[in-house]
Amino acid sequence: MQSIEVNTHSRNELIDITSEVRKAVRSTGVTDGVLVLYVPHTTAGIVIDEVFDPSVAEDISRTLSRLVPAGAGYSHLEGNADSHIKSSIVGVSHTLIIENGELVLGRWQGILFAEFDGPRRRKVYLKVIKG
Amino acid sequence: MQSIEVNTHSRNELIDITSEVRKAVRSTGVTDGVLVLYVPHTTAGIVIDEVFDPSVAEDISRTLSRLVPAGAGYSHLEGNADSHIKSSIVGVSHTLIIENGELVLGRWQGILFAEFDGPRRRKVYLKVIKG
Amino acid sequence: MQSIEVNTHSRNELIDITSEVRKAVRSTGVTDGVLVLYVPHTTAGIVIDEVFDPSVAEDISRTLSRLVPAGAGYSHLEGNADSHIKSSIVGVSHTLIIENGELVLGRWQGILFAEFDGPRRRKVYLKVIKG
Repeated sequence: MQSIEVNTHSRNELIDITSEVRKAVRSTGVTDGVLVLYVPHTTAGIVIDEVFDPSVAEDISRTLSRLVPAGAGYSHLEGNADSHIKSSIVGVSHTLIIENGELVLGRWQGILFAEFDGPRRRKVYLKVIKG
Repeated sequence: MQSIEVNTHSRNELIDITSEVRKAVRSTGVTDGVLVLYVPHTTAGIVIDEVFDPSVAEDISRTLSRLVPAGAGYSHLEGNADSHIKSSIVGVSHTLIIENGELVLGRWQGILFAEFDGPRRRKVYLKVIKG
Repeated sequence: MQSIEVNTHSRNELIDITSEVRKAVRSTGVTDGVLVLYVPHTTAGIVIDEVFDPSVAEDISRTLSRLVPAGAGYSHLEGNADSHIKSSIVGVSHTLIIENGELVLGRWQGILFAEFDGPRRRKVYLKVIKG
């Protein structure tokens, strides 16, 4: 298992980690298989979406905050119930394909770390399975 | 493939199945790999989130019911269109990492079976891949 | 890695691709393992849900459009911010289990390609891992 560190700067923020993930995959030397990305946090997640126009990440983040607003009378008393709910919507685990030693992504796709309760120092775990 | 049985008690309910999943992983003797969790139902799913304060699960369940209310003029005539939609939002498959013979979870993370059309007797399938 | 082509006919549409996926799994000859489905697009995704009553797919599609309406003042200027957001909610990667040479699905489950910015010619990648 490998690990990537991500420093986030706002309460809600989507950060492009594609190049770090690509680098980690190459370092394994595996040419053919799958990659499991796993976020060991309960107020963050992973989104795979367009990264070339940063406004897409902003729209995703703002829309999630409109659907699941902060401080909307939740039972959980730590002030981050919204963050937990957003994490459960986008998900903490995603599986990608590796071919010819490279991560397979669509032309416009990138991997975004989704922070919903920052700023914090976060981790993403990576596990490659040969196949 | 292994299978866990879950008995749910309400229409909407998130049930902590972390200890059953950990036990199933240990029983395989696999020290290093990944675990695929799969829910073979169309009105349920899996959520990985905080389980130490049960109010987080309540907030997730209530917020999903606010966003996707029951009986809101759906086409599907069985009265559980909302349950199917919630299942597609949280997802029926999640992949986790196994290291040193143990499931890798963040300090506050647990695995929740998400019931959206209970009470019912449900199943979760588990498949471990060595890696 | 295998690939399935999907032709979509509307802006928003869920298309049942279960039989193509089952066929692809059988063609590998793998009797035991997992299947990773991966959509290399940023305005589409995969949903696993009921396919026997087509109204379920319609309800999912309409509810996502109610929650994330088109043209609702997004920053992204290509007119498909809603499509990107919906993709991040349902997800582009899902992992299923293979047993006895067949994809494991619940009795009512099928695999739906979720188009959010069609009509287009789309692809779904499939990777089988023995286990």
